[in-house]
Amino acid sequence: MSSLPTLVEGARAGRTRDIARLISLVENGADAVPELMRELAASAGAARVIGITGSPGVGKSTTTSAIISSLRHAGARVGVLAVDPSSPFSGGALLGDRIRMQQHATDDGVFIRSMASRGHLGGLSATTPQALRVLDAAGFDVVLVETVGVGQSEVEVAGSADTTLVLLAPGMGDGIQAAKAGILEIGDVFAVNKADRDGADSTARELRSMIALSDRSGQAWVPPVVKTVASTGQGIDDLMSALDQHHSWLVATGELHLRRVRRAREEVESIAIGMLRRRMGSQDERGGLADAAAEVAAGRTDAFSAATALVTRLMQG
Amino acid sequence: MSSLPTLVEGARAGRTRDIARLISLVENGADAVPELMRELAASAGAARVIGITGSPGVGKSTTTSAIISSLRHAGARVGVLAVDPSSPFSGGALLGDRIRMQQHATDDGVFIRSMASRGHLGGLSATTPQALRVLDAAGFDVVLVETVGVGQSEVEVAGSADTTLVLLAPGMGDGIQAAKAGILEIGDVFAVNKADRDGADSTARELRSMIALSDRSGQAWVPPVVKTVASTGQGIDDLMSALDQHHSWLVATGELHLRRVRRAREEVESIAIGMLRRRMGSQDERGGLADAAAEVAAGRTDAFSAATALVTRLMQG
Repeated sequence: MSSLPTLVEGARAGRTRDIARLISLVENGADAVPELMRELAASAGAARVIGITGSPGVGKSTTTSAIISSLRHAGARVGVLAVDPSSPFSGGALLGDRIRMQQHATDDGVFIRSMASRGHLGGLSATTPQALRVLDAAGFDVVLVETVGVGQSEVEVAGSADTTLVLLAPGMGDGIQAAKAGILEIGDVFAVNKADRDGADSTARELRSMIALSDRSGQAWVPPVVKTVASTGQGIDDLMSALDQHHSWLVATGELHLRRVRRAREEVESIAIGMLRRRMGSQDERGGLADAAAEVAAGRTDAFSAATALVTRLMQG
Repeated sequence: MSSLPTLVEGARAGRTRDIARLISLVENGADAVPELMRELAASAGAARVIGITGSPGVGKSTTTSAIISSLRHAGARVGVLAVDPSSPFSGGALLGDRIRMQQHATDDGVFIRSMASRGHLGGLSATTPQALRVLDAAGFDVVLVETVGVGQSEVEVAGSADTTLVLLAPGMGDGIQAAKAGILEIGDVFAVNKADRDGADSTARELRSMIALSDRSGQAWVPPVVKTVASTGQGIDDLMSALDQHHSWLVATGELHLRRVRRAREEVESIAIGMLRRRMGSQDERGGLADAAAEVAAGRTDAFSAATALVTRLMQG
C-alpha cells in the first residue's frame, strides 16, 4: 500500500486508482482520515457540487448520465458520488442503465463511485462530505452527488451541494406529495423528467404554482422548472443552462460562500458530536450512559435528569 | 393555565384536555418539560407501544383505524401519535378517511394526536419519546405510533416501539425496493394490505422468501406476514393475533426489557447530544463553531482538526 502523501499526490495528478483508494480510506473510516483531511484542506473548494435527488423511478441515473455527457462535451472533468441503494452505479441497475453508463466508465475525465449509505437508510453516507473533499482536491470541475430522495436524505443532499436539482416525473402523485413535505424548500432547480409522458405539463404547472405560493416566491432566486426526457437528451440543454444560471447567481450574490461556510459548520459539528458520542458511549462504568439507560427504563429517573448528569460528568472528565 | 402538578394529575385521571395540554408543552419544548419528565418517570413503562409504518398509499390510516377498533372491542384504552404529514390525523386526509376516524374521535377510550415532524422531514418528531411518556403515564394500555415510511423514519419508529408493524400493498414495486433497503430489518410483523388487489399473494410470497433468506431467518422471532383488507376488516384478527404473539414473545424472552433499555439509552443520548450541540452553537465567539466553519471553508484548517479543537475547548469550558 502506498503511503498517504503518495496517494494524495497521485489523486492530485488525477490518477483514478489513487482517488479510488483515498475514497476507500474515507469510507472505511481509516485511522488515516484525519491526516488525509489535513493534507487536502488547502486544495479544497474549487469544484462545483451539484446534488441530484428524486423518488425512485423518476430517472435519476439517466439524468445524471445525460448531465455527465453535457459537462464532458464542454470539457469539464466530472466526479460522481452515487449514494443510492437502487442506483445503477451501486449495482441495483436495469441492464439498459448499465449499458448507458459504459460510455462514461471508459472516459478518463469521469470518475464514478457508489457509496454505501451505511447507517443512513436511503440517505447520504456519513462519509460523503469527506469523499467530496477527495474529488475536489483531485481537480474535478464538477462533482455530482446523486441520492434517492426519501425524507431526510433530500435535506442532506441539499446541505452538501452548492446547487440541488430535484427530479420529478409526471403522474407520480408521490412526487407532488413529497414536494408538499419539503422538497420545495431544498430544490434550486426542478426538472420534470419523462416529459414525453402524459401529465408532464400539469406536473410542471402544479410545481410552478406551488413555488409561486411558497415562501420562496419572494426570494432573490426563484427555482426554475424545466422539462426533460433524459433518455433522448431532450431538454438537457435547458437543464444545464438552469444549473449554470444558479451557479452564477450563487457566485454573484456571495451565497456560494455562505453555503460553504454553512456546510463546513455542519461538518465540523457532526464530527465533534461523533467524538462526544463516542466519549459518552465509552462511559459504560457506573454513572455512565448504560447505567443511565437502565435507571430511566426502570423509572428510577427521567431522561432529562440522566442526560444532565451525563453531560456534567463528561465536562468534568 | 393550570399548574403542572394539576395537569399531571388530570392526565393520570384520563382527562383528555389535560393530556392534550401536556403533549403541547412537550411539542413546544416548554421550559417545564424537564420537570414534567421527572414527574412522569415513575409511572412510565406500562403501555404497549406499537409502531406502524409504510410508504404513502399502503393504507396506514385505515389500518390504524381498524387496529383501534379491534383494541377497543377488547376493552383497551388506546393512544395514537400520528407523525405523518400525509396522515388524516394531521389534516392531509381524504374525506373518506376522516369520516372513518370520526367514530374514534367521540370515543373517550381513544386519544388521537398528530405531531409535526419538525426538523425531521417525513420522520418521527424529536419530541415523540416524550409524548409517548405522557400517554403512558395517562394510563393508555396501547399506544400506536403511526409514521410514513420513508428512509430514516422507519428506523426511528422501530427504535421507539416495542413492536414495529410494516405495511405494504400489492403491486407497489417501491414496497419491495424499500424492503431491500432496510425495512426487512426493522419489521416485527408485516402486513400486505389491500390484499383484495391483484398481486397480493406474490407480494406476500416475495416478502416471506426475503425474510427466509435474510439474517433474521435464524433468529428466535421470524416476522410473520399477514394479508389484510383494512377497509373491510378482513385479516385484522390475524394481524392482531400476530401483534399479540410478538408481544408475548417480547415478554417471555426478556427482549421487551432490553428494547426499553435501548430506547432509554437513545433518548438519554439524544437529549445529552442536544445539550452539547447547544453549548457548541453558543460558542460563536473567537475559537467557536462559527469561527471554525469559516476557517474550514477558507481551507485554512480541516474539519477534523477544527472539531478536535472545539471538543477540547468544550471539555475545558
